[in-house]
Amino acid sequence: MADAALIGIDLGGTNIKAGLLAASGRLLERWSVPTEADRGYRHVVGRLTDLVATIQRAAGRGTQPTGIGIGVPGPLSHRRGIIFGAPNLPGWVNVPLRDDLSKATGLPVSLENDANAAAFGEFVAGAGRGCTCMVLLTLGTGIGGGVVIDNLLVRGVFDSAGEVGHMIAVLDGRPCPCGQKGCLERYSSANAIAERVVEAVADGAESLLAQRIRRGDEINSGDVARACRDGCPTAKRIWAEACNHLAAACINLQHLLNPQRIVFSGGLINAGDQLLSPLREAFARLNWRVTNDFPELVFATLAEDAGLIGAAALAKEQCA
Amino acid sequence: MADAALIGIDLGGTNIKAGLLAASGRLLERWSVPTEADRGYRHVVGRLTDLVATIQRAAGRGTQPTGIGIGVPGPLSHRRGIIFGAPNLPGWVNVPLRDDLSKATGLPVSLENDANAAAFGEFVAGAGRGCTCMVLLTLGTGIGGGVVIDNLLVRGVFDSAGEVGHMIAVLDGRPCPCGQKGCLERYSSANAIAERVVEAVADGAESLLAQRIRRGDEINSGDVARACRDGCPTAKRIWAEACNHLAAACINLQHLLNPQRIVFSGGLINAGDQLLSPLREAFARLNWRVTNDFPELVFATLAEDAGLIGAAALAKEQCA
Repeated sequence: MADAALIGIDLGGTNIKAGLLAASGRLLERWSVPTEADRGYRHVVGRLTDLVATIQRAAGRGTQPTGIGIGVPGPLSHRRGIIFGAPNLPGWVNVPLRDDLSKATGLPVSLENDANAAAFGEFVAGAGRGCTCMVLLTLGTGIGGGVVIDNLLVRGVFDSAGEVGHMIAVLDGRPCPCGQKGCLERYSSANAIAERVVEAVADGAESLLAQRIRRGDEINSGDVARACRDGCPTAKRIWAEACNHLAAACINLQHLLNPQRIVFSGGLINAGDQLLSPLREAFARLNWRVTNDFPELVFATLAEDAGLIGAAALAKEQCA
Repeated sequence: MADAALIGIDLGGTNIKAGLLAASGRLLERWSVPTEADRGYRHVVGRLTDLVATIQRAAGRGTQPTGIGIGVPGPLSHRRGIIFGAPNLPGWVNVPLRDDLSKATGLPVSLENDANAAAFGEFVAGAGRGCTCMVLLTLGTGIGGGVVIDNLLVRGVFDSAGEVGHMIAVLDGRPCPCGQKGCLERYSSANAIAERVVEAVADGAESLLAQRIRRGDEINSGDVARACRDGCPTAKRIWAEACNHLAAACINLQHLLNPQRIVFSGGLINAGDQLLSPLREAFARLNWRVTNDFPELVFATLAEDAGLIGAAALAKEQCA
């Protein structure tokens, strides 16, 4: 069906990325414009509407989009089309983006959590291809996630499934802004790794990063990865702990859902083998000996395109 | 369809429980015979075959069973119909029970993990009625489980989903016979609770159970529950820890799958409110403050019938 092309949008705090996808799921063309989130909700809806018009003009007669899938930082309700609040989109409290964008563009719109959209993108077109069951973990500021079972995205009864980063890794562990203690993302996100090194140095731990930290430089997970390679004991300890907690989380996903593949994305995977090797090693070491039906642990392959591809693929259900 | 009655069987190490279920899912009649597991696999297949014949004779013309669903202690493969090994069924290594029972009875057979069958039983006819997403935890010798999402049992790619008891609660925690450390069932199963009190007393902890433990009496979770009520500090500490770990596991299930209900079954629920109250309290206390889309924590309602009802319901897919 040539007329089943779709627009996929990945709405971030900084940029709006969009793509036109053919009925086959192939990404035909990409767009990116600044979000200008500081100018408020109505302004951003206007920018989205303009971008859709641009894409419609660019689309050939055979690839006119019949719907829009949009991934947005949550929490939100897919079913109701409402964003409850988004950390990077100031003032977006209980905004009915689905209906507003649909009214403005005349096209049906499907609203999805951005991590869910990225998970579904990797599932249909990236590292999850060929799977029926897959879990994605995005390792960035926090840890997001998405769960696909029997080829379907798991949304949960209140559309808040896939919050892998807030699974409790350590009972009574490190406090999290969410109100819990010991969330996985307080140990294994890119931000947590850097933060823990800074804390350790403040507590007097030896580190190759100590001088930079003391003079107030900002430290990120890339700095910690480099310090590990250079032999810093504190960086190595914290990196290893992050990998162990992540491996335990993967074991928990395995026992609960028995997926074929667990896919990692986000800034932390820039560390490459320095992340994947110890993660796989810890996963094998900490795992049970009862069966060996372990999921593969792999990196995402679609990078920035995962969200918009997934959003479009998820819109297919509603807009076909 | 009067001819879509099914036989549900719950095969345990001690007893074979069976039921005849009407097409509506209603349990019409129950049977129970000793398993005689010590006499080997062939003997038990013979007993199952005889029991099926008994049920067929008892069934009216309108309720002749058209298939059999059987729940068996795992690990096993539903798809291949093979039991890889069962702790309470000596010698059952890689036995093709599905095909053997089907040949012997002339009826299609569906083989399922017993915890999965119990979960699906509660889902269709017990504490999970009215849900679309539900997780069951069986709190007994170990901790088993079953996951239902969007009205379907989650089996996973190798049929080993739902192993909630082997989710890691404490990294590098108490060793588990499965080869892992810190499995949930090493803290929160009925057996683990009793075992931890015995260990604490051996380590010199004060306990109302100390005398009985020292003279070699066997202690079970019921004894620990009583000791808690009588003010034993060690029993109270270990009971509270069991509830906290169980609550954290429920929070993890909530974040990952966002189910409507988490259902508890197994011997430990005999403690009644002494279990449910602190569990709910810990679940609320340890949970995040971001949303309040929490699942309900409830006890199972079908007791011993859950497994055979669920096995029959799951057989419907294959035998209808």
